[in-house]
Amino acid sequence: MKRIFEVNPWTVTSRDLNPKDKRLQESITSLGNEYMGMRGMFEEVYSGDTHQGIYIGGVWFPDKTRVGWWKNGYPLYFGKAINALNYVKADIHVDGNQVDLAKNDVTDFEISLDMKVGVLKRTFTVFGVTFKITRLVSTVIKELADIHYEFSSSDGQKHQIHFDASIDADVVNEDSNYDEKFWQILDAGNEVDSSFIATQTIANTFGVPQFTVVARQSFFGGENHHMTRSEKEVTDTFDIEVPKQGLVNFEKRVIVITSRDYDTLAKVIDTGKKLTENIAKKSYADIYNAHAQEWANRWEKADVQIEGDDAAQQGIRFNLFQLFSTYYGNDPRLNIGPKGFTGEKYGGATYWDTEAFAIPVYLGVSDPSVTRSLLQYRFDQLDGAFHNAKEQGLKGALYPMVTFDGIESHNEWEITFEEIHRNSTIAYAIYNYTNITGDHSWLAGDGAQVLYNIARFWADRVHYSARNDKYMIHGVTGPNEYENNVNNNFYTNWMAKWVLQYSLVHYAEINDNEKVKLALTTDELAKWQEIVDKMYLPEADVETKTGKKHIFVQHDTFLDKDLTPIAEMPQDIRPINQNWSWDRILRSPYIKQSDTLHAMFYFPDAFTEAEKRHNFEFYEPLTVHESSLSPSVHSILASDLQMEEKAVEMYERAARLDLDNYNNDTSDGLHITAMTGSWLAIVQGFAGMRVRDDKLHLKPFLPKNWTKYAFRLVFRNHVLEVSVDGQGSHVDLISGEPLVIDLLDQDITLIK
Amino acid sequence: MKRIFEVNPWTVTSRDLNPKDKRLQESITSLGNEYMGMRGMFEEVYSGDTHQGIYIGGVWFPDKTRVGWWKNGYPLYFGKAINALNYVKADIHVDGNQVDLAKNDVTDFEISLDMKVGVLKRTFTVFGVTFKITRLVSTVIKELADIHYEFSSSDGQKHQIHFDASIDADVVNEDSNYDEKFWQILDAGNEVDSSFIATQTIANTFGVPQFTVVARQSFFGGENHHMTRSEKEVTDTFDIEVPKQGLVNFEKRVIVITSRDYDTLAKVIDTGKKLTENIAKKSYADIYNAHAQEWANRWEKADVQIEGDDAAQQGIRFNLFQLFSTYYGNDPRLNIGPKGFTGEKYGGATYWDTEAFAIPVYLGVSDPSVTRSLLQYRFDQLDGAFHNAKEQGLKGALYPMVTFDGIESHNEWEITFEEIHRNSTIAYAIYNYTNITGDHSWLAGDGAQVLYNIARFWADRVHYSARNDKYMIHGVTGPNEYENNVNNNFYTNWMAKWVLQYSLVHYAEINDNEKVKLALTTDELAKWQEIVDKMYLPEADVETKTGKKHIFVQHDTFLDKDLTPIAEMPQDIRPINQNWSWDRILRSPYIKQSDTLHAMFYFPDAFTEAEKRHNFEFYEPLTVHESSLSPSVHSILASDLQMEEKAVEMYERAARLDLDNYNNDTSDGLHITAMTGSWLAIVQGFAGMRVRDDKLHLKPFLPKNWTKYAFRLVFRNHVLEVSVDGQGSHVDLISGEPLVIDLLDQDITLIK
Repeated sequence: MKRIFEVNPWTVTSRDLNPKDKRLQESITSLGNEYMGMRGMFEEVYSGDTHQGIYIGGVWFPDKTRVGWWKNGYPLYFGKAINALNYVKADIHVDGNQVDLAKNDVTDFEISLDMKVGVLKRTFTVFGVTFKITRLVSTVIKELADIHYEFSSSDGQKHQIHFDASIDADVVNEDSNYDEKFWQILDAGNEVDSSFIATQTIANTFGVPQFTVVARQSFFGGENHHMTRSEKEVTDTFDIEVPKQGLVNFEKRVIVITSRDYDTLAKVIDTGKKLTENIAKKSYADIYNAHAQEWANRWEKADVQIEGDDAAQQGIRFNLFQLFSTYYGNDPRLNIGPKGFTGEKYGGATYWDTEAFAIPVYLGVSDPSVTRSLLQYRFDQLDGAFHNAKEQGLKGALYPMVTFDGIESHNEWEITFEEIHRNSTIAYAIYNYTNITGDHSWLAGDGAQVLYNIARFWADRVHYSARNDKYMIHGVTGPNEYENNVNNNFYTNWMAKWVLQYSLVHYAEINDNEKVKLALTTDELAKWQEIVDKMYLPEADVETKTGKKHIFVQHDTFLDKDLTPIAEMPQDIRPINQNWSWDRILRSPYIKQSDTLHAMFYFPDAFTEAEKRHNFEFYEPLTVHESSLSPSVHSILASDLQMEEKAVEMYERAARLDLDNYNNDTSDGLHITAMTGSWLAIVQGFAGMRVRDDKLHLKPFLPKNWTKYAFRLVFRNHVLEVSVDGQGSHVDLISGEPLVIDLLDQDITLIK
Repeated sequence: MKRIFEVNPWTVTSRDLNPKDKRLQESITSLGNEYMGMRGMFEEVYSGDTHQGIYIGGVWFPDKTRVGWWKNGYPLYFGKAINALNYVKADIHVDGNQVDLAKNDVTDFEISLDMKVGVLKRTFTVFGVTFKITRLVSTVIKELADIHYEFSSSDGQKHQIHFDASIDADVVNEDSNYDEKFWQILDAGNEVDSSFIATQTIANTFGVPQFTVVARQSFFGGENHHMTRSEKEVTDTFDIEVPKQGLVNFEKRVIVITSRDYDTLAKVIDTGKKLTENIAKKSYADIYNAHAQEWANRWEKADVQIEGDDAAQQGIRFNLFQLFSTYYGNDPRLNIGPKGFTGEKYGGATYWDTEAFAIPVYLGVSDPSVTRSLLQYRFDQLDGAFHNAKEQGLKGALYPMVTFDGIESHNEWEITFEEIHRNSTIAYAIYNYTNITGDHSWLAGDGAQVLYNIARFWADRVHYSARNDKYMIHGVTGPNEYENNVNNNFYTNWMAKWVLQYSLVHYAEINDNEKVKLALTTDELAKWQEIVDKMYLPEADVETKTGKKHIFVQHDTFLDKDLTPIAEMPQDIRPINQNWSWDRILRSPYIKQSDTLHAMFYFPDAFTEAEKRHNFEFYEPLTVHESSLSPSVHSILASDLQMEEKAVEMYERAARLDLDNYNNDTSDGLHITAMTGSWLAIVQGFAGMRVRDDKLHLKPFLPKNWTKYAFRLVFRNHVLEVSVDGQGSHVDLISGEPLVIDLLDQDITLIK
């Protein structure tokens, strides 16, 4: 754990300029607007260690990395979200001295992410000048990034600033192999009021489209403007005089247009030019205020208030802020990358995290259309899922572990075709959407193609074990990635059975034309029923130090391991992924994230209280939570089991995972999809939110150190406000018709 | 299966010039002399598909390929045997027409590997000239390669040949990532009688030494000699007039010297120059005859004669020829690469194949010093083995899966730290050497460090399973590489137990100073005994179509698979590694090579006849033999079980694996270490050779289609000749004192 930012309800502020924490600072101060985003790197020259990164949604490159000796079914490339042109770049001199905070004598340094307004502010004083820099990526004009500088003299003297403002297209991914560059320059130009550069991803042999990106910069303020360009960079140069007293402002606006939206280079360039001209009429205040207002609207709908624990309060807001910065449901072609726009690790745009963790949040805080758009994204990529299954020689649809376009783009076979449990989570999202919104139309329409082809995959992926008279699933990795290639992973088997069962139950309701398209035979459906009836689900009685328990077994041979609880191991081995060899980790009983318990997180009502308690008590002491996705699941289950202390401990870890750098890896980027976990831990955990038989249930408790919490919830054309304090729980209907809900096991009627 | 070469007892000849089979032809016509070797590519320009490859023993490069997301304990690089300078290169014009057999109108083409003499001959006629090219890599002067050309007119006309003979240092490995070149030029020169080029492997960040290689060419014959050099190539140009009648000869000699033998560039260059000058005094006949005589000596000791089956005869000779071309025990720093000098696949120089398959052959056909040198190689690399174990967080020594210097240099984690059964085979080789030669001194000395540190590794690698009260080994891959990350692989567990037991039994005999160095405690030895006593070895009764069998189970959940015998599957799925996804292969019951049976191959006397028969009958129908190492093991076991037909079928596959391209992968290079299998199948299989209690046992039978076979055998200062024909078995003592052996279960005394 490492906390370099101050605890404040609405801001994330640091006065620390420690070069060792630079990457951590950059990750945490990231900004984004779904269309694009960037790490919180400094604009001006910084000669210390830094990871400069600007990423654009849906712009990617298939890196040809091959793993070892390529075998049939291995994916061909690793799809990477690629570092795009650096359009915030600046080289600033004060009276001839280069500003470089790694070298200068800096005073009054402060960097602050203002989550209420959605801007990153930075102030510092060097060479007698105080800088105030405000950066935003507009939530109103998606193509716009704005950097506003305010200069003042700190020593009562006049100063001359020489300002080179650039767009640098000579960028490289940190994770590039052999430092390969993914970009080539198409065009660049210095025009009267703006300059631009056009780049395109290099050619590839995989049929992945090449993306064109054009960035154009324009300015307000400064004097003696002249423009230059080199092979891979355009620069606008200004002189700015800082008076003895008072302020001087300077503003840079960048417009980014891509071939994702316009089909020719000429259109991409032209659109950027027109947009630049249009926004030239707007003042900085116009741009700032419109952006701030949109963030206010978002918070109005989604804010979670916590009283009595500022760290918890800051955590949940930070998580929602970064989640919304990554995805807000505006572009149906986009999804929620696990690092968003904050780093390069994990490569792809879309993981099962979306369906497992993000959809349940968006269902609660936004219009159902946002979730439907995320579901439709999977329908749109069904061809890719057919392709992935076929690559493994299997029928039906296999949704990828990582993708941009539906085709698997992760390059480790042990992930690609072993972590197939992800496929069931797509079906779970369909169930979740249908159950929470009450809208069965998607399931009956496009959703049927998704659901029944996933079921078809499972029916082909199981095998029949004659000596057990059971259907089994061999060769998988469950959610616990600290094991590999196991047989009969309880979670995987249980979910596969559930998918087949859910499919069979709802078959009657799907539209006739979808049935025709699916062409499911009676034999096929009968086979599905047989698999449901004979699916092998390992369970056992185990002796533990806390007594005998009846558990579901994580996989066939899990109980043969040395089952020493992690608490009895030396502290210095943790995190084990940084201290142990992969061999030792795989053989150990230590669980990266919930696995058997994950089914109980998805379907709390499908298991008895005793089942949940026994399994929680058995598995949690073996769980190291080194996946960012783990603590929230355990918090919710602990809440369900009235284990309040454990629930709060796990909440804190989920809520402040990145702010406190729990897993010592936030310098690589934020755990965006895990940011959903703190909301889920409060709403599904502390407040016990469930939807059963079309009715909303709430069963809130108040964590010990908190004096109050409150959140709003979207439920079927209603918006509710739930608040919980020492007096009890209150639910108010903010909008919608009168509604009956179950609060603390009693029906109450909400009227506006 | 694809046979492009004719069946002849002593030659491998093709008159086929099919461009599609070019790589296959090149692999099969490879030459080598342990020091260096090459594929059978044409010298002159060939514009069709070809894999030009020349390799030098012990010269390698650590390729920085990283696999996916690097985790602790992964190897840092992939060690590659690298394609060295192309010193046979020629560009030949006849009357101004370029010779290029991919384009020319060629008649009378023939390529022939003469195994008796150890040369590659090629003849063809183009543009009115008949070429006869003879290539050898000298077994007498290891640094020498010789290419001899004989030209004659085929149309009764005079012809002018323009001959550019080069050493080209601009070579690249086919398996290079991003086409990275591993060589840089240090120097080159055209001197009066010879020209040279000096190259060095590029720098690396892994501390692996850079190798310098200097090749120098000199010539006999030709006119108007002039020399040229470009940046990466030296060329000597000649004119040769082909008369209307009669022959004209032209000879190129190449001397290759490396920094492995000389420590400065000056010495490397100078030594090559001197050696070139020395051999200039020798005629071509001198060089050819000395080389041929050495091959005659080798065959004198090692030839296996088979009468009645020319294909079988050719197979065994081809195998011994290629095996001896790769390794003949001259340089203790070298080992037996699985592809020798015939290709790039598999990268490293040293696999467990050496101890598993090659040592048993060398023990039978050569002086014990050759085997001792191979054992000493492992002692010399003990530090690397300590390093490998430490990388996994384990005690003792872990010999690598692939290496040049003792450090693991394979880059797939699932091989590096799962296929650890290899470690036991090093111990098995110590046992084998000691048992067959009767020499216990190596075991008592250096060998003790190897053996007991391997035992130490196993004692740390097992874990105790409380609920079973057994020691187990999780997370391994057995010899069957068509499974991955299994638990309690019978072979691995059995061998680990054997290593510990063998170590305990022989502890009293090891030298005191070795005991001091090992510093084994009484507790440690007691723990080893406990592991021996409680090692888990899975066994079960199974029902099969051929009856109930009691078997040792390949690993914990093997019997839960769908156990359909491979014969009942469609033929077009084979080889499965070219038709199925890796996922399907891993989940299938199909075995790449002997696994459980492998223990019975190593220790035929440690299992009952019933055990061997039940396991053979159970596993063989599931075995696809897609490892080149599999058929011979099954042949030997089938012989042991009097299943003669199966034994012969498997022998044929072992003996002609490459000649008949059984696995459709010989174009990548020959399966050098598997070439031992045919000798083992004859000697240990058909002839039933065993050494029990210091006595040699033989129990020969004659395969049905054969009329006779005979081989010589080295046994403890004796050389025996065993011959088997329709009359029975005869053993003659060729050299040594009188000896009692067991022939067909009866003691006989051999006198010279």
